[in-house]
Amino acid sequence: MTRSSSPEPVTAATDLAAAWLPARMSEVERRLGENVAGWGSELGADAGETLAAGGKRMRPLLVLLCAGRRAGVEAIRAATAIELVHMATLVHDDVLDDAPLRRGLPTVVASSGRRRAVAAGDLLFSRAFATLADDGTPAGRSRPGTDRQVELLAGASVALARGELAQRRDAYDTGVSIERYQHRCALKTAALFECACVIGAARPAAEEAALRDFGRAIGLAFQLLDDVLDVLGPPERTGKARGTDLLDGTVTLPFILARERDAGLLEVDLEGLDPAAAERVCDRIAATGAPGQVRAEARERVERAKAALRESGISGEELQMLELVADGVVERYS
Amino acid sequence: MTRSSSPEPVTAATDLAAAWLPARMSEVERRLGENVAGWGSELGADAGETLAAGGKRMRPLLVLLCAGRRAGVEAIRAATAIELVHMATLVHDDVLDDAPLRRGLPTVVASSGRRRAVAAGDLLFSRAFATLADDGTPAGRSRPGTDRQVELLAGASVALARGELAQRRDAYDTGVSIERYQHRCALKTAALFECACVIGAARPAAEEAALRDFGRAIGLAFQLLDDVLDVLGPPERTGKARGTDLLDGTVTLPFILARERDAGLLEVDLEGLDPAAAERVCDRIAATGAPGQVRAEARERVERAKAALRESGISGEELQMLELVADGVVERYS
Repeated sequence: MTRSSSPEPVTAATDLAAAWLPARMSEVERRLGENVAGWGSELGADAGETLAAGGKRMRPLLVLLCAGRRAGVEAIRAATAIELVHMATLVHDDVLDDAPLRRGLPTVVASSGRRRAVAAGDLLFSRAFATLADDGTPAGRSRPGTDRQVELLAGASVALARGELAQRRDAYDTGVSIERYQHRCALKTAALFECACVIGAARPAAEEAALRDFGRAIGLAFQLLDDVLDVLGPPERTGKARGTDLLDGTVTLPFILARERDAGLLEVDLEGLDPAAAERVCDRIAATGAPGQVRAEARERVERAKAALRESGISGEELQMLELVADGVVERYS
Repeated sequence: MTRSSSPEPVTAATDLAAAWLPARMSEVERRLGENVAGWGSELGADAGETLAAGGKRMRPLLVLLCAGRRAGVEAIRAATAIELVHMATLVHDDVLDDAPLRRGLPTVVASSGRRRAVAAGDLLFSRAFATLADDGTPAGRSRPGTDRQVELLAGASVALARGELAQRRDAYDTGVSIERYQHRCALKTAALFECACVIGAARPAAEEAALRDFGRAIGLAFQLLDDVLDVLGPPERTGKARGTDLLDGTVTLPFILARERDAGLLEVDLEGLDPAAAERVCDRIAATGAPGQVRAEARERVERAKAALRESGISGEELQMLELVADGVVERYS
């Protein structure tokens, strides 16, 4: 249950919105670069490497799509800020996990040590909120909507930290409940997706509620898929070894479902695992068919989210693009 | 060059402003408690312990004093938020330093491990910005001043992280320059003091500039004193062993001045120090008289800051209270 690790871009939605989306995504990318490069030699190459390693930029894409083509600079700053928070959590996650690789590249913690990695994460995090507050408006002039955006992003950041703490509390517990797992996913992944779907622009209450539900549903599906990929790999696609979650003590849904068919899994001593043993546990989980079941559940959730969106009044190109993003979430390596 | 560690309250200014300050400080304390206690079992006792360990609450005190008695709830939320950021940096600092004690109590990292400590710091940090954005105003209603406060606090948080990164870059360098040391202090300590002096309420430009200078000056003095206390102790007052900075590779002004009189200090292998050897280096630094010189410099900076404040147009009880706080900064254990 680490966060997003696959390098494939979601291009379909971008193609569809060719008229306006790519220019705005480029602007977000430019601002991300500025945010990281602007801090000179103190930050060094660390955060720059994480940034360059890229990722799908799925959260900024959702921000811009959900804000719509009529949204202004406030959507771009929100898209930038949400990716900075995501990057900060990746850097800190890697500290927590002592992870050597992220997206196939050395992590900040591996290349520069724990101290610099904690500080680099803090810096990215601080820049996220600085970005929301300072969009170039002259000082003293009010920036409408900033307080709403800060409240949403801070709320999602609180959820991320609580999710991490919950994950630590559940660590190495082979009998952890499905409810605890879902609670963790809601905090650790779904909250930021939900935030992405509403932070870019204020909308009528019914549409905002629909977008929140949509974000939460595809966020959970995204996490389910990530947890499947941790079991199945392949490492050359995911950029990390199979069983990384298990080595970290993190029991996810594929394990939880698998233990109903292979009760011996409950007896596995997760604290004593080495990488080879973790891969063998992954093989046992795969043998039960649980990963396929989890993948099916993720697809089902995405289908339900799309159906709910269609009933919400969101329509036309906007609906079509969001459906494409949703499909992209569950079609990684399938 | 760890951050504030001494447990003595600054009570003089509180006495003077008996009419209004204590009630507001209690409200800040109540909100701090709410911010930490409200997150249930995920956070557990960790952040709660850090909070209960207290500290001088010097930053919130500065926020409220500089905002003045006519300031409203926006000063209280800013005072709460700035202390939450400070607490977050303390928790993360202790992770970086693997520190066993803070103010004489076990640190979060010592009692709960590195993973929970990183996440606990992230949670406190997120709550700081959530606090600024959500002061109970009904959703959708604008909260004037939030964008200004977020910009100020995020800017100070960026400085804190850059200061930590700068400190890591200079680590174990016995020949580090005074300029680098001052640059680090500006980022790591003075920026948050400066922020505290202006975040509570908007003021006329000249007064705001004077308060910024004042905050920066006493912040630097505060750090100078902290660095003296790391060399001189006594541990039973500071709550940590002498030479903690040296063990961490951090070369501070007492060392820098001492090496001009005892050039052998340049040859000390900081990476090879154990606690007993670090104390012996502290004795060598003390023998040169450098700590007294640094303390004198701190006092001089405070005097200059007070003089500048008197010329700024700030007067009366307000001036008197700020002078008392400034004196409190350099009169720890003298």
